[in-house]
Amino acid sequence: MNRHYTLTISCPDRAGIIAAVAGFIAQHGGFIVEASYHTEQESERFFMRQEIRADSLPFDAAEFGLRFAALAQEFNMHWQLADSAQNKRLVILVSRQDHCLDDLLHRWRSGELLVDIPCVISNHEDLRSFVEWHGIPFIKVDMQDKTAAFEHIAALFDEYQGDTMVLARFMQILPPFLCQRYPGRIINIHHSFLPSFVGAKPYHQAYLRGVKLIGATCHYVTDELDAGPIIEQDTVRIDHGDTVDDLVRYGRDIEKTVLSRGLRYHVEDRVLVCGNKTIVFK
Amino acid sequence: MNRHYTLTISCPDRAGIIAAVAGFIAQHGGFIVEASYHTEQESERFFMRQEIRADSLPFDAAEFGLRFAALAQEFNMHWQLADSAQNKRLVILVSRQDHCLDDLLHRWRSGELLVDIPCVISNHEDLRSFVEWHGIPFIKVDMQDKTAAFEHIAALFDEYQGDTMVLARFMQILPPFLCQRYPGRIINIHHSFLPSFVGAKPYHQAYLRGVKLIGATCHYVTDELDAGPIIEQDTVRIDHGDTVDDLVRYGRDIEKTVLSRGLRYHVEDRVLVCGNKTIVFK
Amino acid sequence: MNRHYTLTISCPDRAGIIAAVAGFIAQHGGFIVEASYHTEQESERFFMRQEIRADSLPFDAAEFGLRFAALAQEFNMHWQLADSAQNKRLVILVSRQDHCLDDLLHRWRSGELLVDIPCVISNHEDLRSFVEWHGIPFIKVDMQDKTAAFEHIAALFDEYQGDTMVLARFMQILPPFLCQRYPGRIINIHHSFLPSFVGAKPYHQAYLRGVKLIGATCHYVTDELDAGPIIEQDTVRIDHGDTVDDLVRYGRDIEKTVLSRGLRYHVEDRVLVCGNKTIVFK
Amino acid sequence: MNRHYTLTISCPDRAGIIAAVAGFIAQHGGFIVEASYHTEQESERFFMRQEIRADSLPFDAAEFGLRFAALAQEFNMHWQLADSAQNKRLVILVSRQDHCLDDLLHRWRSGELLVDIPCVISNHEDLRSFVEWHGIPFIKVDMQDKTAAFEHIAALFDEYQGDTMVLARFMQILPPFLCQRYPGRIINIHHSFLPSFVGAKPYHQAYLRGVKLIGATCHYVTDELDAGPIIEQDTVRIDHGDTVDDLVRYGRDIEKTVLSRGLRYHVEDRVLVCGNKTIVFK
Repeated sequence: MNRHYTLTISCPDRAGIIAAVAGFIAQHGGFIVEASYHTEQESERFFMRQEIRADSLPFDAAEFGLRFAALAQEFNMHWQLADSAQNKRLVILVSRQDHCLDDLLHRWRSGELLVDIPCVISNHEDLRSFVEWHGIPFIKVDMQDKTAAFEHIAALFDEYQGDTMVLARFMQILPPFLCQRYPGRIINIHHSFLPSFVGAKPYHQAYLRGVKLIGATCHYVTDELDAGPIIEQDTVRIDHGDTVDDLVRYGRDIEKTVLSRGLRYHVEDRVLVCGNKTIVFK
Repeated sequence: MNRHYTLTISCPDRAGIIAAVAGFIAQHGGFIVEASYHTEQESERFFMRQEIRADSLPFDAAEFGLRFAALAQEFNMHWQLADSAQNKRLVILVSRQDHCLDDLLHRWRSGELLVDIPCVISNHEDLRSFVEWHGIPFIKVDMQDKTAAFEHIAALFDEYQGDTMVLARFMQILPPFLCQRYPGRIINIHHSFLPSFVGAKPYHQAYLRGVKLIGATCHYVTDELDAGPIIEQDTVRIDHGDTVDDLVRYGRDIEKTVLSRGLRYHVEDRVLVCGNKTIVFK
Repeated sequence: MNRHYTLTISCPDRAGIIAAVAGFIAQHGGFIVEASYHTEQESERFFMRQEIRADSLPFDAAEFGLRFAALAQEFNMHWQLADSAQNKRLVILVSRQDHCLDDLLHRWRSGELLVDIPCVISNHEDLRSFVEWHGIPFIKVDMQDKTAAFEHIAALFDEYQGDTMVLARFMQILPPFLCQRYPGRIINIHHSFLPSFVGAKPYHQAYLRGVKLIGATCHYVTDELDAGPIIEQDTVRIDHGDTVDDLVRYGRDIEKTVLSRGLRYHVEDRVLVCGNKTIVFK
Repeated sequence: MNRHYTLTISCPDRAGIIAAVAGFIAQHGGFIVEASYHTEQESERFFMRQEIRADSLPFDAAEFGLRFAALAQEFNMHWQLADSAQNKRLVILVSRQDHCLDDLLHRWRSGELLVDIPCVISNHEDLRSFVEWHGIPFIKVDMQDKTAAFEHIAALFDEYQGDTMVLARFMQILPPFLCQRYPGRIINIHHSFLPSFVGAKPYHQAYLRGVKLIGATCHYVTDELDAGPIIEQDTVRIDHGDTVDDLVRYGRDIEKTVLSRGLRYHVEDRVLVCGNKTIVFK
């Protein structure tokens, strides 16, 4: 993949936005590789994502911003420009279960997931050896004093200059201060097809209700438990012969898939938040 | 398909049940075409379904019952014997939307769904012509006095000797007396992936929550709204570009599919109820 | 849905195309409802689809064409402008099996499929009553002299001013002259996941090979049997217990779904052909 | 999971088989945990799988065999008894790509895949460190002299007492002598939805044909390339925007899933081969 800039925009909807932005890019010889648009009907907001080949522009990202500012103001835009040459930094939080972690680290070391992973944080020692084999620092945080623990985690996240915090089956509920400190930057994988089976032991809940499919949900974390904007979901068929243990086993596979897909969208700046919903430009 | 008997059994689990039942059948030369078993862990109950070729037995269904009674008592069985030569009688209830009705009537007239449909009941006139083209009586029930209306429906169901009542998007909540009168005999299609989005306007609820998949649920009707034993479910992917109208459109397809699958299982005596869950022997 | 124009374009790829087209539309106050782009890597061709609200433009479709011509020439575009107020005319060809026909006619009469169906053509009388109940002319064509029969079909298609010919399980191989006469205008549903199981009895072939999923394929018809550009496909899981008859039954459901989806994309001008492949802007 | 014996049987179909086998088990107090049956129509053969709790029988597996022999002979059975206490031994062959290997080793070390892995064999050094981190011997085989190399592989497989050889993207075509030496014991993952796209570069073939789904196939290896009995398959949706590299990326996920599922069925003695097809008792 050649180096490219990803421009994401949201603004009040009106005629002429595409023409204005595409015109600005064309005027500087910019070559658009991928372009997506969406108008959200309730809020009448317009959302837009463009990938532009970096070598087609006569200036760098900073200069792009300076020149784009006037246009952005005219249309009252929220906007952002990401440079594919700068990897996002993921800080991964885990507990004892390693299926999501294994999946993410494999995608990372095989070059599929283009990110930096400055450290992995856990409340248990179990996964140290596996993480360190990858050459990634592993930090154990003591959870006995929860307030102190979460402040420690926030400090580590800042120290390691994390862009995104990934709860890869961390199994701890984040306190409001942490959720509010990094809005749109904390991603969780919940082991149910939300909004069904919020909270603890969702596979057990699913088993008791006798559903015929189970699922997983990748979402941004907000104050309200398991209620943040959903990025990605999927389901898998089960039947009456499956025990709770079977559900957990099927669930692991779907959790991995859904988290890695959702995270990929996030990392590639394909996810724009609109209220409590997401626009995902695939 | 040759004529066959379907024997369904549930009883407390213990060693030797399969041997006893298979032994009884073999002793009379019975040829088992299909056999399925399941032990429900919580209740420690055993469930069983066998299809036996009718022409392999030296007696008819009534005689089978007489002879089987002793064995059934020994193992404390609930059991039932269905004869494939006797079609189940479905009374279908509809409102104005005809996608599920169209689907069921097509499967019926093409010989895929082996049932009798003695009548279709509706609270609107809209679908009369379509139903009558099939040569099936169409009965409009006035819903102004709800109590009288549902008593009328119960009377019609009995008069037409219905085995199963199918709510094919009937859009009316059945009163408790009706639910209790025909336990395990009323099947509904709900237009959400239960337990998410119980009640009215589930597609609207799904849209507002921003889920990435929507679904449908075929279930037995009980007193508690949308909470009866689930027979079949499925989901379909949507995205941010889909309006509520799009969800309704996708939903129609999945409702048809899920209802026709669930109904087929029911009609072929593949569904055994266990508490608030179902065992579905596919 | 408000009236809108759908502009589809393909041309050699270069910088500035989006800006030029969006600029042209904006200059006339045009409001873009939906926009999609794609660059095909091998051919370096650019593909584009835009939906513009009709009431946002100060002129009609004919005038749009006149004014757009200069721009189109500059970029060497193939382009087309469709008006949502003018329904496409589908001539449907069937044999004896009616599952796809039933599905299409239901979508048509419920207003989901926005097309005109000037007539249904068949080589059998079986489906006359069902088609005529819809108020649609049903024409039986005698297939004994195949050459004469297909010339008759072409004449009927022209006489009824068909835009698209839909082979809804027609079960006859079209002769080359017919395929060549209506390129990109004849749509077939093949009952396998192409390129597996080309030609006759694909479910039987699938059964013998022991595949674990079967599928269906909606494609444009070309000279080469079952080898035209694929519009849509899907698969469904089967297992060792399923007979060929079961495969045929599952297959009917997936054929309906795949044909109706593919046809919808075609009718909404979402399908652009590029060599032997399609771009489908969903 | 408690220790259990898995009894798999195939024999000519006739009345009374289930009764005879279930009767034999019951007579010794055997508790059947799971039971599955299938009659293959073409060959009129009957297939059967039973899981029996080991602690419910008064004798061990060897004694079971001695006592069962007479019954087996009477019904002309092929049969096999597996003891869950004895793990199957998988020898895994890989090349440079590690997604399937990573997936299998994760399932193994987390206790999900109950097997022994005595060694991993490769024609490259790349994955040595990862394999050895698991404490599993890694053996590099030089492929320059192919005949010698495959004889070496066979010798290693025997030396390490392998039960099953798993080609986890080994990317080498096995010679006939090897295929014939271990019938039903070599499992391959092919990166297409067979029978489409046999042989090399299936994702490239799929891209050129313009299919809308791609797939993967887990099958037993026979002399004929990619034509052995299929154990498991699955597909995933792609679209016109996906490059060959995207197909390869999606493909990795589906290859992992399909191989691990197929392998699980094999390891749990759920797969019975019947001609060139499989019966998979899930």
